[in-house]
Amino acid sequence: MAKPLSGIKVLDLTRVLAGPFCTMLLQDLGAEVLKVEMPEKGDDSRHFGPFKEGRSLYFMSINRGKQSMTLNLKTDEGREILRKLVSESDVLVENFRPGVMEKLGLGWDALHQLNPRLVYAASSGYGHTGPDSQKPAYDILAQAEGGIMSVTGWPGQDPVRVGASLGDITAALFTANGIMAALYQRESTGLGQKVDVSMLDCQVAILENALARYQVTQTPPVPLGNRHPTITPFQAFKTADDYIVVAMGNDALWASFCTAVDRESWIQDERFATNRARTENIDTLNTDALEPLFAERTSEEWIDLLQKAKVPHARINTIDKVMAHPQVLARNMVVEVDDPVAGRVQIAGNPIKMSGLADESMRPPIPELGQHTDEVLESLGLSPEKIRSLRESGTV
Amino acid sequence: MAKPLSGIKVLDLTRVLAGPFCTMLLQDLGAEVLKVEMPEKGDDSRHFGPFKEGRSLYFMSINRGKQSMTLNLKTDEGREILRKLVSESDVLVENFRPGVMEKLGLGWDALHQLNPRLVYAASSGYGHTGPDSQKPAYDILAQAEGGIMSVTGWPGQDPVRVGASLGDITAALFTANGIMAALYQRESTGLGQKVDVSMLDCQVAILENALARYQVTQTPPVPLGNRHPTITPFQAFKTADDYIVVAMGNDALWASFCTAVDRESWIQDERFATNRARTENIDTLNTDALEPLFAERTSEEWIDLLQKAKVPHARINTIDKVMAHPQVLARNMVVEVDDPVAGRVQIAGNPIKMSGLADESMRPPIPELGQHTDEVLESLGLSPEKIRSLRESGTV
Repeated sequence: MAKPLSGIKVLDLTRVLAGPFCTMLLQDLGAEVLKVEMPEKGDDSRHFGPFKEGRSLYFMSINRGKQSMTLNLKTDEGREILRKLVSESDVLVENFRPGVMEKLGLGWDALHQLNPRLVYAASSGYGHTGPDSQKPAYDILAQAEGGIMSVTGWPGQDPVRVGASLGDITAALFTANGIMAALYQRESTGLGQKVDVSMLDCQVAILENALARYQVTQTPPVPLGNRHPTITPFQAFKTADDYIVVAMGNDALWASFCTAVDRESWIQDERFATNRARTENIDTLNTDALEPLFAERTSEEWIDLLQKAKVPHARINTIDKVMAHPQVLARNMVVEVDDPVAGRVQIAGNPIKMSGLADESMRPPIPELGQHTDEVLESLGLSPEKIRSLRESGTV
Repeated sequence: MAKPLSGIKVLDLTRVLAGPFCTMLLQDLGAEVLKVEMPEKGDDSRHFGPFKEGRSLYFMSINRGKQSMTLNLKTDEGREILRKLVSESDVLVENFRPGVMEKLGLGWDALHQLNPRLVYAASSGYGHTGPDSQKPAYDILAQAEGGIMSVTGWPGQDPVRVGASLGDITAALFTANGIMAALYQRESTGLGQKVDVSMLDCQVAILENALARYQVTQTPPVPLGNRHPTITPFQAFKTADDYIVVAMGNDALWASFCTAVDRESWIQDERFATNRARTENIDTLNTDALEPLFAERTSEEWIDLLQKAKVPHARINTIDKVMAHPQVLARNMVVEVDDPVAGRVQIAGNPIKMSGLADESMRPPIPELGQHTDEVLESLGLSPEKIRSLRESGTV
């Protein structure tokens, strides 16, 4: 059975995280991804920790199944080879600073003329338009400028970064969506188009109801620790030995909970009877009622009780627990790759399960820097002598 | 110019956040989205705050441009109408608990038989397979079980929830990717397929290098406040009046910074000379060197200095600042909708900018519950009498 993006050739000029995460997703769905890297150095993230036997697990975790060739785009011959590759590619993805591709003569206009079917996707910090377009960007800058840091953490304390690179990853996900929409449209128009996604824009897009709250209250929303702004109780509580998270999304669940803990009086208590009342009186609810109650039992005891009462709940899992979670394993969300040096390594799987896509627990390996250079150049019709001279001149 | 998904009909059975966010993205890209809601009550989130003039801005922020019809799927006639709609739809999206659609006789197998071209997307808490498949899920449960809460916040303090519903939103983004991959493949196979995305899986997929760090150290990663695990300095510092975030992704940026602050000796200092050394000695670096230094100037002064030194930096913006950010506005990331009751409301724009997609700052309105019911039923050939009787019986 062919994979959904089978036959799609992706020319991947990206480095570090946002771009490579996007092309990993395309590869998981069946696209053939050719990673174009600078000779000798390669993708920066080949040199980022954590390392195992000197190999970057950071790089491994997002580059499975891609091919790698080296190519110095600062040389005339390098750019000529890139243009040849563009002629036979469906998608090009880059995450350079805006303007870099244009300076190389490889901007959207030039490449669109060369291959009108090409989908050109640019993932950048601030986007290809607007006053800040040229500013350098990193994940934490997008998290800071885009607002998510201002609503994450505890009020009055130092600000908190989301513990994964959300700036990069959301940009990757929106970029992939744009690429696939463009591929779909190309089926009827025969033409590619440019997709321009910025980390900052994506941070704004995921703020959810924070924009709405600001409009209503005219006060910027503050961080709320681990509770939800408008649903109560919907948070973590300390138990006798750990924490437990509960999510009572409606009044019926609240009533089930009250009954299960023998506090039926709370169901009628006007301070707690509705979600609105509970949210307005959350300090009283937590300090006087719920915190002392949750402290009485261990997390294990709470899980038993909440399971019986059918009240949604969860433990706060550390990464070791996540990687051993029966549901996570049953869904092939921890997959393996074999590395010739580091041995078998576990990485996150593809969360897009499709009836037409086999869900393999073993994933194809990580490419060595330039592993496929010769093969690709030969397919372009270059002679062994030519390839040797390109290598000697540092072009590949 | 036609939009990328123009002509695609989406039957949207989703409620609250993950599903509606996914179909909003499809609508932004040009799909025609018909929201099917329970008579009288409608999507739960119509009743979630924040409210303006009694209208839910929560609901508004993710349902622009959709059509709405009411339909009670618990009635035979309701299901019959749904089957008619399925026959002429391209995509169906639902976020019921797994098994609900099957019980209604509307599961993937039945609908695939009815319309082999249908792409059927299910967004659920734990997925349609595995031991926890039937468990109810909410955003905070996915954040807790999937590991992100264990690496967000300050070490030793109470755990922190990411301040937006990351569990729902990442599921929405992966689901949309699956839907578009399936639409693309349908162009060659003529067949739809089932897309099955879970919030828990998506949380694992975005953990980034946390899985890698655990494998190397065999110790579960802990929250790190606002710093990056392996890049230093890459965090927020307190200034004389606020905070400033800096991101020195390589040693050259570190050297520029040291020169700009007249601390050239740090460039050669073996404790700070390389990113690896800085990360290993971060406590010394921060306590003895950087924290006192950043406290000397205001954020405004730091911005001047860092701009001149070309060191990437950002303020931590609160939501009011985000909504007035010149780059955010220049990119149409705050757009407007006119509501007949609440008036003009600002919501987040579409971060997928495409050369073939006009980027409008005014978005189509939010549908009233059942606003398009008659229109849709008439298009199915139902007579006015029939529609009246369906309304009287509570079917629509």
